[in-house]
Amino acid sequence: RINSDRLWDSIMEMAKIGPGIAGGNNRQTLTDADGEGRHLFKRWCEAAGLEMGLDEMGTMFARREGTDPDLPPVYVGSHLDTQPTGGKYDGVLGVLGGLEIVRSLNELGIKTKHPIVVTNWTNEEGARFAPAMMASGVFAGVLDQADVYEHVDKDGKKFGEELERIGWKGTEKVGDRKIHAFFELHIEQGPILEDEGIDIGVVTHGQGLKWLQVTLTGKEAHTGSTPMPKRRNAGLGMARVIELVHEIAMDYQPDAVGAVGHMEVYPNSRNIIAGRTVFTIDIRSPEKEVLDAMDGRIREGIDTICEALDIQYAIDQVGHFDPVTFDAGCVKAIRDAAERLGYSHRNIVSGAGHDACWINRVAPTAMVMCPCVDGLSHNEAEEISKEWAAAGADVLFHAVVETAVI
Amino acid sequence: RINSDRLWDSIMEMAKIGPGIAGGNNRQTLTDADGEGRHLFKRWCEAAGLEMGLDEMGTMFARREGTDPDLPPVYVGSHLDTQPTGGKYDGVLGVLGGLEIVRSLNELGIKTKHPIVVTNWTNEEGARFAPAMMASGVFAGVLDQADVYEHVDKDGKKFGEELERIGWKGTEKVGDRKIHAFFELHIEQGPILEDEGIDIGVVTHGQGLKWLQVTLTGKEAHTGSTPMPKRRNAGLGMARVIELVHEIAMDYQPDAVGAVGHMEVYPNSRNIIAGRTVFTIDIRSPEKEVLDAMDGRIREGIDTICEALDIQYAIDQVGHFDPVTFDAGCVKAIRDAAERLGYSHRNIVSGAGHDACWINRVAPTAMVMCPCVDGLSHNEAEEISKEWAAAGADVLFHAVVETAVI
Ligand SMILES: NC(=O)NCCC(=O)O
Ligand SMILES: NC(=O)NCCC(=O)O
Repeated sequence: RINSDRLWDSIMEMAKIGPGIAGGNNRQTLTDADGEGRHLFKRWCEAAGLEMGLDEMGTMFARREGTDPDLPPVYVGSHLDTQPTGGKYDGVLGVLGGLEIVRSLNELGIKTKHPIVVTNWTNEEGARFAPAMMASGVFAGVLDQADVYEHVDKDGKKFGEELERIGWKGTEKVGDRKIHAFFELHIEQGPILEDEGIDIGVVTHGQGLKWLQVTLTGKEAHTGSTPMPKRRNAGLGMARVIELVHEIAMDYQPDAVGAVGHMEVYPNSRNIIAGRTVFTIDIRSPEKEVLDAMDGRIREGIDTICEALDIQYAIDQVGHFDPVTFDAGCVKAIRDAAERLGYSHRNIVSGAGHDACWINRVAPTAMVMCPCVDGLSHNEAEEISKEWAAAGADVLFHAVVETAVI
Repeated sequence: RINSDRLWDSIMEMAKIGPGIAGGNNRQTLTDADGEGRHLFKRWCEAAGLEMGLDEMGTMFARREGTDPDLPPVYVGSHLDTQPTGGKYDGVLGVLGGLEIVRSLNELGIKTKHPIVVTNWTNEEGARFAPAMMASGVFAGVLDQADVYEHVDKDGKKFGEELERIGWKGTEKVGDRKIHAFFELHIEQGPILEDEGIDIGVVTHGQGLKWLQVTLTGKEAHTGSTPMPKRRNAGLGMARVIELVHEIAMDYQPDAVGAVGHMEVYPNSRNIIAGRTVFTIDIRSPEKEVLDAMDGRIREGIDTICEALDIQYAIDQVGHFDPVTFDAGCVKAIRDAAERLGYSHRNIVSGAGHDACWINRVAPTAMVMCPCVDGLSHNEAEEISKEWAAAGADVLFHAVVETAVI
């Protein structure tokens, strides 16, 4: 078993960096706080005798040598970046859970045949720069590195330049590593495990996602003196699209979700009809056919809405991944570990996207989940218990060690 | 007749201060650009032999002495502040039209019995600090000066402090002036005059307005892993209220308008269900009963929407004026002037709020309107012709001089 106090203390130590305003964290990718979090993680890795690699996407790879260094390593990890109003565990548990495995192996004097590499993937959240899971996407060859370097945040700052600015752009080519297997521990971010009182989610599948960034262009005009029939109201258009997305998601739920969380309004004045709105639709489903059907209905609906309001639209797909089926062998390793350790467990589909979803395309991959209070995540109030964290890390420990072979 | 070239040149000179990004202006109230515009206006007034007064709300009063200085002055003016993406004429035409009257009187060597005061009212637009027509509202005793000093902009800066910062807080008590009559020239900001090919709008009434600032509080949560029935989506709530406002306005139009131009979303991340939204509803009608009925239906509707979505709401009325009937004598002076000068004219109801609407409560008041291209205002593309401006200023000239008595 891992040392649950040490794991918890490390999580709390990391949470001091980039504090939020309500007990959580704002350690968005490539901010100064992200840089500081990376330094702390690096110091811990060095203290544990690991050797740090850094690739051109800023992903950190901390290696514990195997008895057969020529064997491809077993990778374990997640991400240290957070949402602007994020929790202390989303991502962090997976990275520090990986570190805890290594610390436990050191303490127990256990050597594995395969090296073990603890990984911190850059920009998993996609909050500052779309899309989410950016570095793992480039690693898996689905995203183009030169392209994502040019992606800008709300202030127009480029991903590539911000990565250099915080000093964490490495020289290692992205995707050049051979991965024997990848394991990611993460909080569920949904309510199922807690509701059912189950310790461990054995993640068999991941939902697919589309992010559609929509720009509506109407005409700025006076709210008081412009007759109703003369209006070309991009704010009203946005409202109708938000409702449309909700209705379509309701039609397919529980096999789908949909919402708009990001909205910008121009010029955003009380007495000006919005001339332009920009917002991002987030739709997801574990079924590719459902995701595609939603996408089609949304595009059709936007066309109809805009025609009725005499406004123009542009739709830009800024994020996309198909539903994922994780590797049967890795999934079994996790289920066996939970069984062996006596933790209650069930199969589960990940509602969120994870770096594991991309890495699954280039190496055998699976995920362990632990419950979180009220299913709440992407909220500063995100909470888990030390016991839940420990159970997840224990299962991760056993699955990794079994795969890395003693 | 006034000098139309001189009037036009002054408007173009003023438009150089606080340029927009698309040919219009961003000279929002109490910004450095507003301060600079005030200095230019003051220099012009001094060159025309006027004496400048400044009250505690920053309103500028440029006085041309009458032959009987004890008579109460005839006031003429409007505002020099603009929307963030405003036009070159909204407000400016009325202030510089007033200045042009005085320049013409000087040139013609005409003396009036009553003094004439050209006025620039502070914060007419209400874009940076709600409500609109703030200084004239304090002058008329409907708004409280100490209260509006505390109103904050989006960055939390206070009106009172910004007024001091730009150096335009005067010492004169607000509302202490006796006003014989007030005349305001303004662009129509709607399409009626242009559509009908009419030179002059004789403004008999003004629409009433309510600004309702709504705060919806739901719960931030993950867009991917939060089941649809568990969501408390403040973004969806806002969308439904926007649609509600539109539908209610459509029910009463052409006797009403309604829209939401201002919206804020927290935390505004693609993969977070909005936990909070703040937005302002703008509803207007020339009929007080209609305005009140709309207000009632909106409040009821918000209650229903929020109950269905399990979100909380708060409604704060941040702006309000009842429909206005302008002074019959002043209206007649404007109609007579248009008639005498041979301009085509019609009665018109102002769709927008104006300083004249407040001053009408404390002194005989009326307004002259000239057409604007496509009825477009609160848009940098706002446009008028030199001839339209000249016709409006001519009518203003005659109405003012007749009222100030030669
Ligand atoms: N796990 C997680 O919250 N990832 C961010 C990407 C997503 O929105 O699913
Ligand atoms: N004339 C004008 O645009 N005033 C601003 C206040 C309003 O929204 O009506």
